[in-house]
Amino acid sequence: MVSSWGTHLKMTIFGESHGPKIGAVVDGLPPGEKVDLAEIQAFLQRRAPGNFPWSTTRREADTFTIVSGVYRGRTTGTPLCVLMDNTDARPQDYAEQKRLPRPSHADYTGRIRYQGANDPRGGGHFSGRLTAPLCAVGAVCRQILSRRGITIAARIAQIGEVCDEPVDLARPDLEKLHSLEHRQFPVLGHSQGREMIAVMEAARAEGDSVGGIVQAFVLGVPPGLGDPIFGGVESRLASLLYGIPAVKGVSFGAGFDVCTLKGSENNDSFYLEEGQVRTCTNNDGGLNGGITNGMPVVVNVGIKPTPSIALPQQSVDLETLSEETLVITGRHDPCIVPRALVAVEAGLAAAFLDLYLGTFGLKG
Amino acid sequence: MVSSWGTHLKMTIFGESHGPKIGAVVDGLPPGEKVDLAEIQAFLQRRAPGNFPWSTTRREADTFTIVSGVYRGRTTGTPLCVLMDNTDARPQDYAEQKRLPRPSHADYTGRIRYQGANDPRGGGHFSGRLTAPLCAVGAVCRQILSRRGITIAARIAQIGEVCDEPVDLARPDLEKLHSLEHRQFPVLGHSQGREMIAVMEAARAEGDSVGGIVQAFVLGVPPGLGDPIFGGVESRLASLLYGIPAVKGVSFGAGFDVCTLKGSENNDSFYLEEGQVRTCTNNDGGLNGGITNGMPVVVNVGIKPTPSIALPQQSVDLETLSEETLVITGRHDPCIVPRALVAVEAGLAAAFLDLYLGTFGLKG
Amino acid sequence: MVSSWGTHLKMTIFGESHGPKIGAVVDGLPPGEKVDLAEIQAFLQRRAPGNFPWSTTRREADTFTIVSGVYRGRTTGTPLCVLMDNTDARPQDYAEQKRLPRPSHADYTGRIRYQGANDPRGGGHFSGRLTAPLCAVGAVCRQILSRRGITIAARIAQIGEVCDEPVDLARPDLEKLHSLEHRQFPVLGHSQGREMIAVMEAARAEGDSVGGIVQAFVLGVPPGLGDPIFGGVESRLASLLYGIPAVKGVSFGAGFDVCTLKGSENNDSFYLEEGQVRTCTNNDGGLNGGITNGMPVVVNVGIKPTPSIALPQQSVDLETLSEETLVITGRHDPCIVPRALVAVEAGLAAAFLDLYLGTFGLKG
Amino acid sequence: MVSSWGTHLKMTIFGESHGPKIGAVVDGLPPGEKVDLAEIQAFLQRRAPGNFPWSTTRREADTFTIVSGVYRGRTTGTPLCVLMDNTDARPQDYAEQKRLPRPSHADYTGRIRYQGANDPRGGGHFSGRLTAPLCAVGAVCRQILSRRGITIAARIAQIGEVCDEPVDLARPDLEKLHSLEHRQFPVLGHSQGREMIAVMEAARAEGDSVGGIVQAFVLGVPPGLGDPIFGGVESRLASLLYGIPAVKGVSFGAGFDVCTLKGSENNDSFYLEEGQVRTCTNNDGGLNGGITNGMPVVVNVGIKPTPSIALPQQSVDLETLSEETLVITGRHDPCIVPRALVAVEAGLAAAFLDLYLGTFGLKG
Repeated sequence: MVSSWGTHLKMTIFGESHGPKIGAVVDGLPPGEKVDLAEIQAFLQRRAPGNFPWSTTRREADTFTIVSGVYRGRTTGTPLCVLMDNTDARPQDYAEQKRLPRPSHADYTGRIRYQGANDPRGGGHFSGRLTAPLCAVGAVCRQILSRRGITIAARIAQIGEVCDEPVDLARPDLEKLHSLEHRQFPVLGHSQGREMIAVMEAARAEGDSVGGIVQAFVLGVPPGLGDPIFGGVESRLASLLYGIPAVKGVSFGAGFDVCTLKGSENNDSFYLEEGQVRTCTNNDGGLNGGITNGMPVVVNVGIKPTPSIALPQQSVDLETLSEETLVITGRHDPCIVPRALVAVEAGLAAAFLDLYLGTFGLKG
Repeated sequence: MVSSWGTHLKMTIFGESHGPKIGAVVDGLPPGEKVDLAEIQAFLQRRAPGNFPWSTTRREADTFTIVSGVYRGRTTGTPLCVLMDNTDARPQDYAEQKRLPRPSHADYTGRIRYQGANDPRGGGHFSGRLTAPLCAVGAVCRQILSRRGITIAARIAQIGEVCDEPVDLARPDLEKLHSLEHRQFPVLGHSQGREMIAVMEAARAEGDSVGGIVQAFVLGVPPGLGDPIFGGVESRLASLLYGIPAVKGVSFGAGFDVCTLKGSENNDSFYLEEGQVRTCTNNDGGLNGGITNGMPVVVNVGIKPTPSIALPQQSVDLETLSEETLVITGRHDPCIVPRALVAVEAGLAAAFLDLYLGTFGLKG
Repeated sequence: MVSSWGTHLKMTIFGESHGPKIGAVVDGLPPGEKVDLAEIQAFLQRRAPGNFPWSTTRREADTFTIVSGVYRGRTTGTPLCVLMDNTDARPQDYAEQKRLPRPSHADYTGRIRYQGANDPRGGGHFSGRLTAPLCAVGAVCRQILSRRGITIAARIAQIGEVCDEPVDLARPDLEKLHSLEHRQFPVLGHSQGREMIAVMEAARAEGDSVGGIVQAFVLGVPPGLGDPIFGGVESRLASLLYGIPAVKGVSFGAGFDVCTLKGSENNDSFYLEEGQVRTCTNNDGGLNGGITNGMPVVVNVGIKPTPSIALPQQSVDLETLSEETLVITGRHDPCIVPRALVAVEAGLAAAFLDLYLGTFGLKG
Repeated sequence: MVSSWGTHLKMTIFGESHGPKIGAVVDGLPPGEKVDLAEIQAFLQRRAPGNFPWSTTRREADTFTIVSGVYRGRTTGTPLCVLMDNTDARPQDYAEQKRLPRPSHADYTGRIRYQGANDPRGGGHFSGRLTAPLCAVGAVCRQILSRRGITIAARIAQIGEVCDEPVDLARPDLEKLHSLEHRQFPVLGHSQGREMIAVMEAARAEGDSVGGIVQAFVLGVPPGLGDPIFGGVESRLASLLYGIPAVKGVSFGAGFDVCTLKGSENNDSFYLEEGQVRTCTNNDGGLNGGITNGMPVVVNVGIKPTPSIALPQQSVDLETLSEETLVITGRHDPCIVPRALVAVEAGLAAAFLDLYLGTFGLKG
């Protein structure tokens, strides 16, 4: 326990990578909201394995069925359940995993946690595949949020050593940000994007992998959402985003870079723009004291290199308790960052709908 | 809502910076645990304002009273309430704050969130002063954890541009780590410590402030604690640590640095040491799939420069809606990092007791 | 929100009476527990519509599929999702319901609560049909509990004015109680059972319905489960049992009858039996201060007459806002009590597994 | 865990009967609400021991201090903490209790649950004294609710065999109901009240005690509050009300009496009154499918005879494990019902504010 998240919107994710179905239940959606199935499918497509030419991963249609919570094309307000089939399962690829855990995967910890009873195939419940139902939920929440003027855009800010072009966090180019969702490789700088892809392809050629950073913007957020101390927006977003496999860092605004700044450099001074209170800079990422201040909420998510690599690695045979070299055969993805980006967007959509409902209620 | 945290251990923090009392209630403590009051006081002393020669902040005795949950020196198992008085309150220092919000503080967002009804004095419920009861709770949890072989050590890893000496995350020098709690300025490298203090003093002289990074180690953690997806250790720790004011980044193990590594460099290979499964490196910070793997849990916490500085700053008069220069008079702390470090330790103690109880129950 | 329940075991129920699927997700099950599918099916059969000769209700096979959380016949410890199809849906029967709400049903309140967006067919998410997934979850929990020595038995204590034979709550005949689950009409007294069936058949013949009381016993419960104040066993059980449609009263032990007793009559004196502390009477139903005392836990559940009756009733046309006579056509069940009994057993199984895990943890 | 309750409003109660202080923290109150301290004190006075001439119980001033969450007479919206001193503690009265548990008290179960570490004095955390902070919280919530048109009235419906006069649950006399809070003995029928007091005095004279039933009405409730299945109003209210010591039954509307009714008698037909949908009868107590329907919410609470009696009782010496006669000396209260009534009112106030916030949010 618990694969659940949320305060006003409650989301539970279930399934194993190679079980019959994966899915999610989300409770607390406002009733009467139009649900555009094609838009959900398009959103899922952005995450789908097999979408990326530089990758050779498992192919899943990632089609979905909503079996509850939607009636005549609108949310009922009662729990929405979305289901997806696992169609391209190849459990035989994972026969060894239980015995010989993959480094930096959950094979070993899952075995200990569940006393050997967990489903070991493809990481079971720990698999990145479980972000698919998160994305389906997020796709529904996005539609509801956008009717309230809140939108989400995310870019690949870094792959390996290659960084995307800089952005003014206080006054980002909204049109450019919103164009990201239509790009197969969502970076702002085209040349930087090409370099990143080269880094990924080189890693694949070597049987290796690379990590990176996703930077997401939540735009149109009213000031005053969130709660103090442990109910702060940062607490809630981080607890959700760390639910995405391979995330090892979450920061806000200027993030860890603020450590090297002086207060006089880092503080976001206030000014007025057309009668609205705004800040000159946005090092705080739109958040003060855990509460939104009306500026763009900026979230940085650090994603580690995919732990599944083709190179030989040292592991330990858990049955004989002896060290052994592990070679992972079969497909692998040299960089999970582009797919994790979609999960980050989805998570933020769920989180901001939760925050919105907390302030405005179901009648809001 | 909600200034509460926890799954098996439930902690609620209350109070305002200049109200009559601040405190915390913690429910779910195992019964019959000895509570050493002197040890709690010593732990609080490490956080207390006025403890640091390079700082000139408000002085609070930070004495505490436990009014429930302890009987004859041991936990009863029913809710423990700890209270602290606010003795050195100078509310007049804060008269202007409601009208003219301090940049990068919660003055503006608190006003919006609570429709102007929040206590503006010294940040009210948003004040860093609220970490005092967190520390009292953490001090109790530390005692209980240490009887189960789990200890916590934290160091200042960076102030401004100055970094502490490097540590092997997989095999840290335990003796050195445990000595940190007895040092007034908890860094491993003495010369680096002196440099950091110089940076802080320079900032104070300029009326400015600096930020930094705290790195904490949780040692002796059994493998198998935590839960998948949103119940992962990272999710839980981050949601707690972001409750500490001025925290803008939380990462685990090698943190954001993993983005530039290859999978073959980042993966923590397994080996055997006296029959125990261990990892050669510890880039994952002791956590795979949200579950502890038995290696030290390593957490990095990025803390922004204290937003209260003596230099003039631009703000907006919220009553006349006009821009105005703000000058904050009175004491200020040029660097919150050493005090935040104690709160990080406290938070981790609460979090790991919560995790421990989740696996082993009250009978464990 | 929220169709969820539980502290250590978390259960979420989803679906609408005439939607494509209904189901439940349960998180927090101990790993490695054998799941006997045939036993689940047999348990569901006891609840299934069409099981009762005196009733002429909708027929549902109530077959189920577990799509996650079970691997090679054992729980994985990760969320278990069970799905059921709605096969005998006749949505046209319910065309009028949205306009003309059925008295004492949720048609009117559901419409208000969800601003008209709820699925009106057969009560939608409010339907008694949603107890089917609860029963599936309960059937799994029963198996796990029985391995820990805890069993549940329930009887129909009253239908209309007819009461079952009296039971000594402190020393019930265990063999007789355990035989109840094998009886189509679970009463202890055979003649009383025949009378109750006659009452039900008479109601059906009149196009009317009757209510009754279920009394359940949880046996083999160790002392010390539960928590004080709002975490008491009574609080938890009642919050779950009121999730079963038509339940209007929940009491424990001697229930409301204690109001007429003196303290000297009602108090359960202690005595010793083979070195065990026990009580002479069991008016408190095995619970003191919200905590189990080792005696049988006794729960009484009052169930109202099925609100769907064939007789004409007065309602209000919500579109024209005029009073109108409503005649409900189609099948209806004259007494929900025998089926609600199975849901009560299921709920108690989930609740006691939750309580057990709270004390003994996952390692217990 | 957990002495906490609530979804949108979170309340935690702490303290032991003879510890230094008892209190409560409530989080989630809407900001800017006027808090009338005299009104709180008057409400507490209604519950205070020593208020009742027919009783000779412990005298506590039950004065309170609010130490957080109120600024300049209004709620801040951040956690409100209320504290009370235990002034009339006589711990020596309770010396034996740990060894020789009082029948039908929590002495035995508390000892098992907390492995002997609980505070045994006067029941410790299990004491009815803990309803004092619940009443303080409820007194605040009442004030906030009444500004939204929602009021609460409760009567003693039964003491021993004596019942109060009948009430039309659908159209109760509002003026009469509202007068109850100003009466020392809140019954509707004066002669019945005199009889009840006679029953209580007789019990006291015999060293015995009596139980009874409280019936509460929540008036002015808008339709549409609450949630389906486990989030229903009944589930929430029952889980709260069972937190009041000595409560053994909670039912709604006509309660357990519905079991003997036909559906045609029990169903609450709809009609129109000045354009509003209302029901002719109110057997469902204003609740259908867990959601309010706009009629008065009617709750019945069955309270057992006070287990502390002067008559000798059989108990078990837990140290020597031998049966022994227990004689409780010192003051005792022959009937807890009048004081429990105030706690019921308080609990309902908290519960309905929670429900209200769930629908209308903080902006509502």
